[in-house]
Amino acid sequence: MTLAERFGTDVFISGWGHTKFGSLPDETLESLVVRVAGEAITSAGIDPGQVDEIWFGQFNSGLWPLGFASSLALQVSDELFRVPATRVENACASGSAAIHSGLRSLLAGTARTVLVIGAEKMTHAPAEQVGAALLGADYELAGSESRTGFAGLFARVAEAYRQRYGEINDALGAIAAKNHANGMANPLAHLRKQFTPEFCSTTSEKNPMVAEPLRRTDCSPISDGAAALVLTTQPSTSAAQSPVRLLGFGQANDFMPANKRDPVEFAGSVAAWERARKMAGVGLDDLDLIELHDCFTIAELVMYEVLGLAERGKGRQVLEDGTVFRDGKLPVNLSGGLKSKGHPVGATGVSQHVMAAMQLSGTAGELQLPGARRAAVHNMGGLAVANYVSVLEAV
Amino acid sequence: MTLAERFGTDVFISGWGHTKFGSLPDETLESLVVRVAGEAITSAGIDPGQVDEIWFGQFNSGLWPLGFASSLALQVSDELFRVPATRVENACASGSAAIHSGLRSLLAGTARTVLVIGAEKMTHAPAEQVGAALLGADYELAGSESRTGFAGLFARVAEAYRQRYGEINDALGAIAAKNHANGMANPLAHLRKQFTPEFCSTTSEKNPMVAEPLRRTDCSPISDGAAALVLTTQPSTSAAQSPVRLLGFGQANDFMPANKRDPVEFAGSVAAWERARKMAGVGLDDLDLIELHDCFTIAELVMYEVLGLAERGKGRQVLEDGTVFRDGKLPVNLSGGLKSKGHPVGATGVSQHVMAAMQLSGTAGELQLPGARRAAVHNMGGLAVANYVSVLEAV
Repeated sequence: MTLAERFGTDVFISGWGHTKFGSLPDETLESLVVRVAGEAITSAGIDPGQVDEIWFGQFNSGLWPLGFASSLALQVSDELFRVPATRVENACASGSAAIHSGLRSLLAGTARTVLVIGAEKMTHAPAEQVGAALLGADYELAGSESRTGFAGLFARVAEAYRQRYGEINDALGAIAAKNHANGMANPLAHLRKQFTPEFCSTTSEKNPMVAEPLRRTDCSPISDGAAALVLTTQPSTSAAQSPVRLLGFGQANDFMPANKRDPVEFAGSVAAWERARKMAGVGLDDLDLIELHDCFTIAELVMYEVLGLAERGKGRQVLEDGTVFRDGKLPVNLSGGLKSKGHPVGATGVSQHVMAAMQLSGTAGELQLPGARRAAVHNMGGLAVANYVSVLEAV
Repeated sequence: MTLAERFGTDVFISGWGHTKFGSLPDETLESLVVRVAGEAITSAGIDPGQVDEIWFGQFNSGLWPLGFASSLALQVSDELFRVPATRVENACASGSAAIHSGLRSLLAGTARTVLVIGAEKMTHAPAEQVGAALLGADYELAGSESRTGFAGLFARVAEAYRQRYGEINDALGAIAAKNHANGMANPLAHLRKQFTPEFCSTTSEKNPMVAEPLRRTDCSPISDGAAALVLTTQPSTSAAQSPVRLLGFGQANDFMPANKRDPVEFAGSVAAWERARKMAGVGLDDLDLIELHDCFTIAELVMYEVLGLAERGKGRQVLEDGTVFRDGKLPVNLSGGLKSKGHPVGATGVSQHVMAAMQLSGTAGELQLPGARRAAVHNMGGLAVANYVSVLEAV
């Protein structure tokens, strides 16, 4: 049973927009939102007046003074006056939360055309403010001061993984190097730098330990950026590129307190993947590429196992046998991932869908994987607390 | 055409929970959320395991350190593990945003039972922090320091109204006194105090001017509180009370910058009302009561005109002829409104729906309006930027 069979309607990604990710001092939250919203509308070949609803993903948590940003996208055009606009938040999965909210509107029939935007402005804020904002996504640490911040949380995951399954230093270095190599071909990426696996897995002045065992190259950067999509129930006949069909989606939230969860299981991500996979009626063998949430390299390693690329404790195998590299059987994070592309929190989920859609419409430029037909996207908020998976298909 | 005819499914409010509103120093955001979620599930007569999705309305904007609160409701029961939970935000309309998101899930068929929660913890924070958080909902003032805060914004509305239509001092005093009188019968209300219209319309030591022409009695208080609803596509057969049918709903957002809008038109609220009214197939004469967003008394005065109770500039007439009082033709804010009941921002929209649902199920206690069959709820975020209307009917 596909999404269309289950809900009686299809959902297409018909157009998109995406700013460069990075330190963008000349941009405001508003300029980012307006830019990608306009790009997405143009790319979808629609008039602004055709937009029935706007869904906006942003974490914020004190990063930007305007705490009520849903209506910023109306600034794109006077034709957007009166369009319902809603902000959704699920920490680092806020972008996917906006997409999955918008697709409910299409399935419900409250809208036929939805504009989805994800954005975050981060680099203007002092490091301590950014650290405090991100810690706002953790049950125990919200409101506290932590020297290692969110890296400290994922370091605990890495530590637990290491104790259970053995050394992972080389695997984490290989993931960082792979994603940085992939990102070299992405003109929108924040960190376009090539590193060897050895550099990434070695502590040095240029690659200091952030939170044992995670080094700087294990951590995604703090970035500004935005991305947008137009979702429609009919393929747009005037779009700049082929539409992409949404085959399935799944969301699963987990308990907030870390002590209620196995740190290396990512049980919510397992549930989200199972839901999306079943709705799409696909297995791993049907996929050509995966964009997954590598906020820290350890997250990508665990996700190999969550998605079933490798058995539990054996995620490193798909690095060793080449599966997840550009020329492998199932490339992971061809865009460079959060690691190289950057991680403007609320934008990330939308960006992942845009990167996958570009591949499936054959418009990914230097990033293009020839013949890509199907992709999965995984995005999570907090330490696998809010989990989203989408399965996309070329039309 | 009703909601059920248009979307092929009915939506019922099958149960609810509601904390007292006020200064609740012993409560945390989590304890408030868990309390009302549990109450709503019990009141709906369902098992926690029947909840398919959770939608959480909260403004936050720096008021509470946990910036990622969607999953707090999972703490109610281990059976809620893996339930998709999403926070939505539309400033002071965040509660209605959660309800309207949840009902899309029911219309889409992604859920048959939805738990909706609205909550805000405010009184623990210093006054300046609360002021800054609330100013985060304004396009111009976000991030700035303003002596008069959000009251200053609505004072500009009052000033513009006064210049266009004449003196409103007595009308504002009458609204404040009415809502305080209504709130005397509401055990959940924050400010259960009776004031004469004369006291409310006179500047005094006990009723100082906050922002000319708005006095303290023109402003809703800063409150803690939470409210929750269970929405279902089938009436629950084991609920503690009769279900309430959602007949229609409408949302309309307006431009953020005030200079793009007529300050006394509330054009977005007009659009939301028209959409909800048309979907429900009702007119004003079909309604028995209205709960509307009286964050400041001037907002209630303008809303009389938006909803069509009076012509533009003549809102005071429905106070003079008694229409909107408890024993009038169409009582407004029988619950006490935001004015008396309190305004814990994210909770307000859910609270308004609960108050209306209690009336329609005949369980409103001392607040009960005999024979109430249909109600409208209006909730807005910012200065009429995010606007929501729901029309409810007794089953």
